[in-house]
Amino acid sequence: MSIQPRAMNTPHAAPLAVSMGEPAGIGPDLILSLYAERVAHGLPAFVVYGSRALLEERAQRLGLAIEFATVSDLDQGAHDFQEVLPVVDLGAVADTPGQPDSAAARVVIEAIRRATEDVRAGRARALVTAPIHKGVLYGADFAYPGHTEYLAALCAEGDRVPTPVMMLAHENYRVVPLTIHEPLARVPELVTGERIAETVRILARDLSARFGITDPRIAVTGLNPHAGEDGAIGTEERDVISPAIAALREDGLDVTGPLPADTLFHPPHWLAYDAVLAMYHDQALIPIKTIAFESGVNVTLGLPIVRTSPDHGTAFAVAGTGRASVTSMKAAILLAEELS
Amino acid sequence: MSIQPRAMNTPHAAPLAVSMGEPAGIGPDLILSLYAERVAHGLPAFVVYGSRALLEERAQRLGLAIEFATVSDLDQGAHDFQEVLPVVDLGAVADTPGQPDSAAARVVIEAIRRATEDVRAGRARALVTAPIHKGVLYGADFAYPGHTEYLAALCAEGDRVPTPVMMLAHENYRVVPLTIHEPLARVPELVTGERIAETVRILARDLSARFGITDPRIAVTGLNPHAGEDGAIGTEERDVISPAIAALREDGLDVTGPLPADTLFHPPHWLAYDAVLAMYHDQALIPIKTIAFESGVNVTLGLPIVRTSPDHGTAFAVAGTGRASVTSMKAAILLAEELS
Repeated sequence: MSIQPRAMNTPHAAPLAVSMGEPAGIGPDLILSLYAERVAHGLPAFVVYGSRALLEERAQRLGLAIEFATVSDLDQGAHDFQEVLPVVDLGAVADTPGQPDSAAARVVIEAIRRATEDVRAGRARALVTAPIHKGVLYGADFAYPGHTEYLAALCAEGDRVPTPVMMLAHENYRVVPLTIHEPLARVPELVTGERIAETVRILARDLSARFGITDPRIAVTGLNPHAGEDGAIGTEERDVISPAIAALREDGLDVTGPLPADTLFHPPHWLAYDAVLAMYHDQALIPIKTIAFESGVNVTLGLPIVRTSPDHGTAFAVAGTGRASVTSMKAAILLAEELS
Repeated sequence: MSIQPRAMNTPHAAPLAVSMGEPAGIGPDLILSLYAERVAHGLPAFVVYGSRALLEERAQRLGLAIEFATVSDLDQGAHDFQEVLPVVDLGAVADTPGQPDSAAARVVIEAIRRATEDVRAGRARALVTAPIHKGVLYGADFAYPGHTEYLAALCAEGDRVPTPVMMLAHENYRVVPLTIHEPLARVPELVTGERIAETVRILARDLSARFGITDPRIAVTGLNPHAGEDGAIGTEERDVISPAIAALREDGLDVTGPLPADTLFHPPHWLAYDAVLAMYHDQALIPIKTIAFESGVNVTLGLPIVRTSPDHGTAFAVAGTGRASVTSMKAAILLAEELS
């Protein structure tokens, strides 16, 4: 795990790097629709990593008149973002909305790799990733469980691969699931003191470094109903979570808990903390999606770069139709700008 | 399990029965504060079951000028609710806000018993229970895990004890936890087809009988993230929940699921169903408390009587101070009126 401070020599004018995501999904739609309304949305400059041919065809399908410019080595200043959409073109891909083709997998993977490389080198400010479809990539020998693990590998320093931490954010509501895509039956054994300590440390550091929050206040949920009610409804709070919190507090971190999860996410309670660490997927995602279904942003902490992504998938059913909501992708772009 | 239709000969003018709850808690405060503002709150007539001496002393402490009338056999018409607060007086209890005393346990238990008896006999329309403190009752040989189990026992017909089902309700948002105060690690084994079938049947019947909803639409959550994602993140959806839903649908019930819990509780999605059956405590209570922290009402389905209660505890810290929020108790009284 290694976090670098942001390169201080990165000019503020460096653009955001946006990876196109799955070509058959709504990623291209969102990027193109947002670019077409860039002034109304107040968007910062960004460069798209993907297929120019695909983007051109999708723009035509959506009835959007957009000028593109192929950029090779992010020759900033050569193009005006208000006039042309810069694309790092990684090869032609056929435009088949809703019908993913593993032939495009190489371009999808290369887009993520090149965009990450440019952000790490300071040529771009931060990374925003459009949704990918893992099934397609697995068919092309993609060796990572998902997007985030691939990014962590790309950010490795020698053998040291950083530990990515997923945060969901909407305005000042922030929540981190300690465990993510795990069967509920496995969750209790995955709630360990080590995992809580590592996650809280990454969270506290990035709340300071990225969000500019001094001495962040972090709440930790219980695993069981009523946070175990003093051991009457489960023992993990007493045996695992409370000792982990005590140790973090001894190290000077402002950590409160374990708190009953059912009352913690009432908005005024939630906002009393800069972030909440929840124990598992639904405990974290139910409250954020209940209050901010379309506008939640996924932020990856723990990496040496800023990375955000929309909180939805490829939505094959509406790809190419113009009916996809840009809300979350727009929020992801604006948050990436803010955090970098 | 036996549900009786509401007695058709119950006059609409019958009052609600309100049990006083733990004398050292906020139950008496809420009852007295609401009575004092009965016109502003638009409250229906109710009778309090508990200790008149305690209520008189608490009213004085709160600075509320209230006239009381002791009623013995609910001699309706003898008292005007707008003039006097009728009390079924079950014995003197000392007024010690915040300091529960097991000497009062007999009155607390008797209040619940007598109120339930009067509702079952049609002398009262519905039961609203103020919060009790289980620890105090256990000291007095109370043999039930909680309030609801005691009510179920009081409603038994011979050996047949009805199965109570807990629902949380706020406006048209309704959610039922399949399992309640269980350690998370036990939840997967408690999610059985039998339990789902019995709970959905009680829910569907009471949505029709109590809430007047014809052919209620019921959604069922998954247990695992993304409802298991076709078995990739847990198998309970495939092996247990889906077959249970299929059987219920074959019986003509409008049941949908298992649905991913993180997206289901976004308000417009939630309102597409008359109620959601969630698999465990936090999965059900996080969304309702996130959107309606103070105004949620606990409704007990599956009993031959209507029973509601506020969605909070005894709040010893504010008992006797006048600072307790009446919102949930008021909502419980109004919903009991509506459902009966």
